[in-house]
This record gives sequence, C-alpha cells and structure tokens, in this order.
Amino acid sequence: MSFSPLIDRLVDALRVLPGVGPKSAQRMALYLLEREREGGANIVNALQKALDEVGHCENCRTLSESTQCEICASPSRVDDQICVVEMPVDVLAIESAGGYRGKYFVLLGHLSPIDGMGPTEIGVEQLLQQVKLRKVKEAILATNPTVEGEATAHYLAEQLKPLGVKATRIAHGVPLGGELEYVDGGTLTHAFAGRREL
Amino acid sequence: MSFSPLIDRLVDALRVLPGVGPKSAQRMALYLLEREREGGANIVNALQKALDEVGHCENCRTLSESTQCEICASPSRVDDQICVVEMPVDVLAIESAGGYRGKYFVLLGHLSPIDGMGPTEIGVEQLLQQVKLRKVKEAILATNPTVEGEATAHYLAEQLKPLGVKATRIAHGVPLGGELEYVDGGTLTHAFAGRREL
Repeated sequence: MSFSPLIDRLVDALRVLPGVGPKSAQRMALYLLEREREGGANIVNALQKALDEVGHCENCRTLSESTQCEICASPSRVDDQICVVEMPVDVLAIESAGGYRGKYFVLLGHLSPIDGMGPTEIGVEQLLQQVKLRKVKEAILATNPTVEGEATAHYLAEQLKPLGVKATRIAHGVPLGGELEYVDGGTLTHAFAGRREL
Repeated sequence: MSFSPLIDRLVDALRVLPGVGPKSAQRMALYLLEREREGGANIVNALQKALDEVGHCENCRTLSESTQCEICASPSRVDDQICVVEMPVDVLAIESAGGYRGKYFVLLGHLSPIDGMGPTEIGVEQLLQQVKLRKVKEAILATNPTVEGEATAHYLAEQLKPLGVKATRIAHGVPLGGELEYVDGGTLTHAFAGRREL
C-alpha cells in the first residue's frame, strides 16, 4: 500500500541510510512532506553541496573539502607520528578522545582480497611516501580489532620495518567502565596477554 | 571536532529527520560520502521531486501528487462511509490492515488551541462539504486515542449530528496479542466499559 509513486521513490531512496529500514524510511518521508518541508529542502541543498565538493585530503585521504584537511594543514600537530586508521569516522573518534597530537593516514578500508581491496586500494604506496616525506618515527596502527583489521596492521608493519619506522599497535583489552562478566573471551585473552606490572 | 564545514552542515540538516540524533546524523553523513554517493544523489533527486510535486488530495487532504489521491479516485471504494484520521500515515496504517472499503478524510492534525489548530485548520468545513456531497451515512472517527484526539472526535461528532450522519468512534481496548499485565490502566478501563456478551 502506498500514496503515490513519488513518495514510494523517496522511501526507497532513504533506505540506503545506515540503520534505516522500510518503516523508518516511510516515517521520515512522511515527516518531511507533512511537517518539515523546509528541513527537507535543507537536506537537499546540504547533501548536494557535500556530494559535489567533499573529496579526500591529498595527504591523509580523510574526507575534506579542501586539498589538505585541517589536521594535515595544522602547524600545531607533530609530523613524526602518524596514526593509521580504516575510515574517516575513526579519525573523529580519536580526535574526540583528545590525547593524540600527531597526524593521520586513512586507508579507506582494510585488506580484503575477496572484495578487491589490495595494497593499492588501501594506499600503501602513499602511506610509505608520507612516512618518508615527514620523517615519521612512529606509525600507530589503529585499524579495527577484527580479523581483517589485524591482518592489515601486520601487513603494514612489515612494509614499514625496512624504513626504520617503529610500528605500534593500539592495545586490546577490557574497555574502561566495562564489567568483566560481559567482556567476550577473545578480549579477555588479549587483556591477560597484555597485562602489566603495577 | 569535525572534518569540514560542509560535512557539519550536512550532519545538522540530517538531524531534522525523526529519530535521528547527532551520532546517527554523523554516521549517515559519513556513510553517504564514503560509500554511497550514488544513493546520496538518489536521495537528493527523490526528495527534491517529492517536495516539488507532492501536495494534498483536494477531496481528502492526504498527501498526493495528483489533485485526487488514488483512494478518492477509485471507483471500487464505497462513497457512503468516511474515515476521519489525523495524519496521512494513519491512512496507510488502516489500508495495511485491509478491512476498510470506504473513503478517508485527513485532518492534518487535531484540535489544539494552544498550537493555533482550530476548526479551520483541521478542515471541518471541507469535511462537512464532502459528507453532504457524497451522501455519507457513517463517519468513523479514527483520531488518535489521546486527549486531543478524543476532544477532536467529540467536536466532529457534534458537527456531524445535524446532518443526520452516524458518527462512530473506533473501539479502545486491549490490543490483540497483548498481555493484560502490560496494558495500562486507562486502556483496561476502556476495555471493561466496552465489554460485550459472547
């Protein structure tokens, strides 16, 4: 059941959004048409402009509307540390945490031969070039703690070693504020293996 | 923390969507820019076209891109029953249930003097006109079971009486498949008051 082909098309289009199923898409479409036409027009403009103008930073490959992103262009960030992450959203997460003062490199994915993601796709050449250019001393490999993320981190560590760069991996363990009871076995094993003396 | 003004603007724009907070809006914006640019362009086009062309049915006031909606234009729907609902989405809900074969009238809200919603805004004149024009015998008042919805239903019943139209209200009671334990007191009181002999 539907009102009209145009509303159906809008509902279908909204379903590509992450976390949006048929019911929420319908609710969004009707809400925009019934009560928020101005907000709807605003989405059209903002999305069109972002799609047109937002590309990738030529240094670190994060999303940016200028050729260099704010972090790469900032003189207050140290040049000799580079943090390697999978996606632009990971940069945001680390920046929100606030402790890191170096620069970034975004792989835009992880090694996954089945999906056609090889060293070229994740920009290994460009990463090594940045490392040489900036005389990077430490590369912090902050890919996701998944099988693919781990494999990618190990591959990158192998590539970075010949350049004399220290490749480090972010620690895995029990999250702060978590309860041991609800932590999965893999994480607990990592937490035990990575234990330190107090 | 943000990437760029354009992405910030897109995140803000997406926040008008119902059920979308700052975190989901950011996730949606990055997802569209990173992995679904085609889907993003599709949203721009579908939303723009819907905003431009979808208006209201001249008979029943539901959302429609033609002057008469499909239901009003359908010869297979009976003319002597009219179901009065608050919003277009309510029409969809009743149509999905599938049992109703009459036509609709959409108030586009409910009586609420504080919000400036009076008889003119909910289209009472137009409703009475439709009732006369179609020789409606029964008006099913299916406004929401809220204080405002009940008040609106009672007001409409008063207006319809002089025209000799039977005004009925949908039943309130325990939902099918629900457990008594979790049903609120008001609903239970309605369910008892509306009890029938088996």
